Amino acid sequence: MRGESTRARLTEAALTAWAAGSYHGTGTREIAEAAGLSQAAMYIHYPTKEDLLFQIALDGHKEIEAVVLAAEARASNPADRLREWVHDFVTWHAKSHTRARVINYEMRALSPDHAREIAKIRRNIGFVLRRILGDGLESGVFRVGDTGITANAIVSLGIDIARWYRDDGAWSPEEVAQRYTDLAMRIVGAA
Amino acid sequence: MRGESTRARLTEAALTAWAAGSYHGTGTREIAEAAGLSQAAMYIHYPTKEDLLFQIALDGHKEIEAVVLAAEARASNPADRLREWVHDFVTWHAKSHTRARVINYEMRALSPDHAREIAKIRRNIGFVLRRILGDGLESGVFRVGDTGITANAIVSLGIDIARWYRDDGAWSPEEVAQRYTDLAMRIVGAA
Repeated sequence: MRGESTRARLTEAALTAWAAGSYHGTGTREIAEAAGLSQAAMYIHYPTKEDLLFQIALDGHKEIEAVVLAAEARASNPADRLREWVHDFVTWHAKSHTRARVINYEMRALSPDHAREIAKIRRNIGFVLRRILGDGLESGVFRVGDTGITANAIVSLGIDIARWYRDDGAWSPEEVAQRYTDLAMRIVGAA
Repeated sequence: MRGESTRARLTEAALTAWAAGSYHGTGTREIAEAAGLSQAAMYIHYPTKEDLLFQIALDGHKEIEAVVLAAEARASNPADRLREWVHDFVTWHAKSHTRARVINYEMRALSPDHAREIAKIRRNIGFVLRRILGDGLESGVFRVGDTGITANAIVSLGIDIARWYRDDGAWSPEEVAQRYTDLAMRIVGAA
């Protein structure tokens, strides 16, 4: 249990540092200090800075995957499944925009093995969306020219929130989610 | 003229280095070497790494601003102006995805003064789009609930291309541009 909380403190400190600066701009000593640890104590948990990044990416991606799977499971027809998927994907990115920035824009810093593991989860997140689009196309409720590029566009709406969203901005996460859900329904021709 | 080409060589070398790694991960010595200069010679043109980043950001943003202004000017009614704006904004981001990544994801590394200057150009790029949306809303050809969030969504489609686009991927810049133009027309309710 103590190991768990130390690890959580380290990922928290890393996220705070990387969100303010950048992954490459912040060293392990700064992160260890912010977590109240020596560098030597940190190395027991995370031997390299990249291990810390991977832990954050893994936790974040597993969380988004669980969020969209749960969202899709709440509805049965393709239109409602898409609404739920977009609503919760967008809400997550607005609420967790700091984390979303790191796990979307720093992924080239991962080792090849770690990058492959994250890519697998990302593919599954996208696969859930393409399955919904495919089902809606088949049942005639969606009019979509190209499932792949339509899925890309809907994912982009969500991910780019990490770049522009501000906690003190004009819209709450719920407002962005509702409006983007409407836009997604227009994109698939089911508004 | 020689000064101009030296400056261009430096921004080119910086872009290549930052696209492969990251802004914070690459030092000025590496950049000077790649441009075939000593660090001392580089400092004459760009006293700091941040000056190099600003030059790249300024050139890129002015280019995008010119692209969308020219695109809008090619058409007269709001629907065609939107088509042209989206087509050329998307094409630019797909063709220049390396540059687009740097000038969208490294902007927090700019000094406050430089950040303000870039923000001004970005506001103008967004303003052109909101003007088109407003005109389309007024003339009844667009059905848009919220001009601000709709503009955000359309901008996001373009910018996020910098994250996912690959030169050896499934779609050419022109294909993405055509499909995204159709999606934008759906988003504004004018498909």
